[in-house]
Amino acid sequence: MDSGIITAGLLVIGDEILSGRTKDKNIGYIAEYLTMIGIDLSEVRVVPDVEEEIVSALNALRHRYTYVFTTGGIGPTHDDITADAVAKAFGVPIGHDPRAVALMRERFPNADLNEARMRMARIPQGADLVANPVSRAPGFWIGNVIVMAGVPQIMQAMLDEAAPRLKTGRKMLSASIPAGMREGDIGTPLAEIARTHNDVMIGSYPFSNEGRPDTNLVVRSRDPRALAEAKSAVETMLASLRANGVGAT
Amino acid sequence: MDSGIITAGLLVIGDEILSGRTKDKNIGYIAEYLTMIGIDLSEVRVVPDVEEEIVSALNALRHRYTYVFTTGGIGPTHDDITADAVAKAFGVPIGHDPRAVALMRERFPNADLNEARMRMARIPQGADLVANPVSRAPGFWIGNVIVMAGVPQIMQAMLDEAAPRLKTGRKMLSASIPAGMREGDIGTPLAEIARTHNDVMIGSYPFSNEGRPDTNLVVRSRDPRALAEAKSAVETMLASLRANGVGAT
Repeated sequence: MDSGIITAGLLVIGDEILSGRTKDKNIGYIAEYLTMIGIDLSEVRVVPDVEEEIVSALNALRHRYTYVFTTGGIGPTHDDITADAVAKAFGVPIGHDPRAVALMRERFPNADLNEARMRMARIPQGADLVANPVSRAPGFWIGNVIVMAGVPQIMQAMLDEAAPRLKTGRKMLSASIPAGMREGDIGTPLAEIARTHNDVMIGSYPFSNEGRPDTNLVVRSRDPRALAEAKSAVETMLASLRANGVGAT
Repeated sequence: MDSGIITAGLLVIGDEILSGRTKDKNIGYIAEYLTMIGIDLSEVRVVPDVEEEIVSALNALRHRYTYVFTTGGIGPTHDDITADAVAKAFGVPIGHDPRAVALMRERFPNADLNEARMRMARIPQGADLVANPVSRAPGFWIGNVIVMAGVPQIMQAMLDEAAPRLKTGRKMLSASIPAGMREGDIGTPLAEIARTHNDVMIGSYPFSNEGRPDTNLVVRSRDPRALAEAKSAVETMLASLRANGVGAT
């Protein structure tokens, strides 16, 4: 891409996330991982184990972003319908993939390689496999879509497998500045800095510092010089507020 | 609704979630909370602090589900643009709401009630306020959309405020059955049970039990009798597998 910006969407698939039974641990991990390697995570969707919902969300995301990652729904049971939904979204057939079958045969003695486990060797036509060093049953990569397991340990291993083959862009740089004062005390001068530094993004994140309201300011940019200038402007602004007694307890 | 089913979408707003800097704690909390009170969380989206993205996702969700909950972007700084985006989605004006201004005046002495803090009193026309017992600056409720803070402690208090006014449906009931065996050993007979019990949803969730692969089976239904029957069928199936030596170490 000419802009040097690579984007991604993430599709989390599973009734258990929407019911609250399982607390997702993949969104935050993938977000941090992609940021680190120079890919902007631009949107996340969580959908249930319903084929038309998966197909529709996947088609919306894959036409919009450089990559789409999916998590969940590639196990051996009847509620694992991600591979079929992905095949449907791409309009390709799906069946037992000889490479995936070979991996499953290595892992499971004949008697154990039952119909359920063979489901995990069903891969849409034209996909590449994504190795699963944890429990063998592979993920896959078709078009710009990378299909991974939902179990965090396995998803993380699959992401490590896929990452070296991803195009990455200029990394987003960031600087975090602890403010030592309340967000509402900073908002007005901070908005002025944001207005005059168009080439950076400035976020303001309130938190409770041992019961005292405090704020972290985060400056982000792909341009190191713009980042440094905005950071310096924020620090000068904070020093000036402090000199006027703001934030003193 | 005649079906007795009340649905919800959740829109999480914030660059900090997509960059991985902040790990979302609201999705799992809201999912569990809504399930408990009889509302089905049907979809979640995470979008950046970009007005057109918020407007577009909000319009997609609010026309589709009984309710939409949003988290994030209602603080005092320039990057808090949720209220404006919601007003735009509904096509209504936004300005300082006298009720919200009064709440802010109660909390902040005159000198402290600056332009930034007054941003938090900007509410779309026609909205009801959602009280914030933690730090006063309110959320709001317009049409079928409930707008809440992103800070978990405040979001949770706002959800408690809004909940008594929500329509709720027949609660989804669930039973969790520890299998004591690997998912792949269960998949084939479990699919048969799922096929013959159309009135329940059966999920299968692998996990590592002190290093040994294990599985939780979860049966869900609004009908207690159907739930009990499916649970019993699953237990009988597991007992039969165990009798054949499956799952023994």
